[in-house]
Order: sequence, then structure tokens, then C-alpha cells
Amino acid sequence: MVCITSGGTTVPLERKCVRFIDNFSSGHRGAASTECFMKAGYSVIFINRRGTAQPFCRFLPEDPLLTCFEPAGDNLIQLIPSHAVAVQKAVTEYHSALNSGHLLNLPYTTLFEYLEILKIVSLSLRQLQRNCMFYLAAAVSDFYVPWQSMVEHKIQSGVGPMAMELAQVPKMLMLLRHLWAPEAFCVSFKVMLP
Amino acid sequence: MVCITSGGTTVPLERKCVRFIDNFSSGHRGAASTECFMKAGYSVIFINRRGTAQPFCRFLPEDPLLTCFEPAGDNLIQLIPSHAVAVQKAVTEYHSALNSGHLLNLPYTTLFEYLEILKIVSLSLRQLQRNCMFYLAAAVSDFYVPWQSMVEHKIQSGVGPMAMELAQVPKMLMLLRHLWAPEAFCVSFKVMLP
Repeated sequence: MVCITSGGTTVPLERKCVRFIDNFSSGHRGAASTECFMKAGYSVIFINRRGTAQPFCRFLPEDPLLTCFEPAGDNLIQLIPSHAVAVQKAVTEYHSALNSGHLLNLPYTTLFEYLEILKIVSLSLRQLQRNCMFYLAAAVSDFYVPWQSMVEHKIQSGVGPMAMELAQVPKMLMLLRHLWAPEAFCVSFKVMLP
Repeated sequence: MVCITSGGTTVPLERKCVRFIDNFSSGHRGAASTECFMKAGYSVIFINRRGTAQPFCRFLPEDPLLTCFEPAGDNLIQLIPSHAVAVQKAVTEYHSALNSGHLLNLPYTTLFEYLEILKIVSLSLRQLQRNCMFYLAAAVSDFYVPWQSMVEHKIQSGVGPMAMELAQVPKMLMLLRHLWAPEAFCVSFKVMLP
């Protein structure tokens, strides 16, 4: 059993959020790794940012419904021949994985959703002791605005430059490794700068 | 002829961008308005944030390819009956609009792409004088980090809280109205706070 995290987390800048800081991540590493782990016989809990790459779908174009289908008259639609094989393969493999019971898809958007889901999953997997793995490919926010210092509404413009102070996100990896699932095997990634 | 802007713009926080500030907008107002203007006989230039709502597709679920189709055996796929009518209608109407030559779809992601595209479109529409309209439904960033004060690489964590100073985005609406297409009719929106 492996828990794979994928995509980037957001942090809101206002309580009734209009603006947020996002971490860019296409989710391709997490999606590709999910496919590989499943082929190797693992069950996968795939914690992923809404809208990022899904397993078995990495080779589809952006907005595949509008790009890969065309009207066929009489309100029917058909696959555009050049996309047909890729689309059929993606839908078939994705649904087979879900229906096999070996893939659980848990989407998140904000940092807070991400951490809550990761905590719930790791506390549940704790009983597997050494027979579970965390493969943390998500791009998790390093900085956030604490709730008590967050303004209620959209920050108004027209008042010159804006200064913002961001607090560091506590290192949750430590909680995972020491508290939530101490016996699990953990893999994490760090951006390498040239 | 109407130029409709839709969705939110992003501003990068690093030159080799990992983090960015985003403005939340589903794009439903812009997409719905595009449909209405087309029904009223207008040609529409739809400047929209990648991944936000598309005209004629507002009633589809998230990730419609994986949600609305299922395997049909032998690597073929089929529409799930409960979604069939909505999907067929969306694809048919969207492609009919494109093929009619009365819809031009121009996607952007960053504030800078958005402003460049808006400038090019408005300079081109200028010759239509009073026979064109700008309907600015996009949620445009109010603040950004100027290139010269932007760090090269991902801001590193591990050094305590982070202070950020953001400059105000110049009011480009003034340029549009006074310089780029001074005779055009302009509609813009402002968030109302309670």
C-alpha cells in the first residue's frame, strides 16, 4: 500500500478568499508514479490537487472533451480519429484501476485540506506498520497567512504598494514520521536549484 | 463584435516561477455571457484563463472525460447515459460556434499574457470604432512583483517568516479607453463587499 501526494497546494490570502498563493505543479510525477506502483502490484491512495494530471491520462491534450470529440450530426458526437486510441486507453485504464479497488482518488485544493487528508490517511495506515509507504510528490506551500492575521475580505487596491508577511508552514513531514505513521517508509522530494 | 475577458490572472513570485498569486474566478460569468452575446448575433473574442469555464460547457461536471464516459469493452468507451445529453449538447454547440467563425478562443494564464492579448485585440478592434464592445469579466490582479525586484529562483524556506512587497498594477482600463480603442463601448465589473 502506498499513499502518493501530487500537485501543488494553495494558501488563501483573505478569509473570504479571492486571492491565493499557489505552487505550480502539473502533477505528472505523482500521476506517472501511481501508474508504476499499480503495475508493480501496489494499492494506491492518490491525494491530488484538483485539476492536475490524473493517472493513465498524462498523454491527453488539455481540455480533452472539447479537443478530442467533434459533432457527428443529429446531436451525436464522435472521437476525432487522431485522438481515438489515446482517449479510449485513458478512460479504460483509469476506470479499470478504480473498479479494481486498488486506486482511491482523494482531491484537495488548499494546504489545509491537503494536511487534513494526509493526517487522516496516515493515521488509518498506521496499523499497516512497515507495510505501507508515503511517496510525497506534492509541492506543498512553505509559507501561509495565519487565520488570525488574515483580513476578512478581498484586499482593496488603490492604497499604494501592499506589504504582506507570511509565516512558515510547520514541517508536517516530522509529524507524519514521528507521530502519525512512525513505521511507514517515506519518500519525499526537494526542488534542486542550479 | 464583443471582446469578453474571463477567469482570473496570475502573477509570478519568482523569475523561474514556482509560486504565484492567483485570483479566484470560475469563469462562469464570462462563459455564460459569451453564449448570450452569440445568441444575440454578436461575434465574440473570448479571452479566457486556461482551465476555467468554457461557453456551452457550464453544466458539465469537473473532469468530464473521466466522469461522463465509461469502458464499453474491447478498449471502446461510451457515454454514461445520465450524462449523455449534456455532453453531446456541449460538444455540438461549442464546435458549431467555433466553426461558424463567430467565436475566437484566446487563452491566457499570467497577468502579462492577459494584458498583451487585450492590447493586441483592442488595437485590432479600434478600426471598428463604435461598433465594438469590451465586456471585462476577468478578475485581474491588483498587485504584482516587478521583474527587477523578483528573485531568480524559488524562495527558500527555513529562514523564518517572509515579507513580500507587492506593487500596484497600473489601471490598464484607462489605456484601453483612452489609447487602444477610445470609441469602443466598455463594460467592467467590480467585486461588491457586504
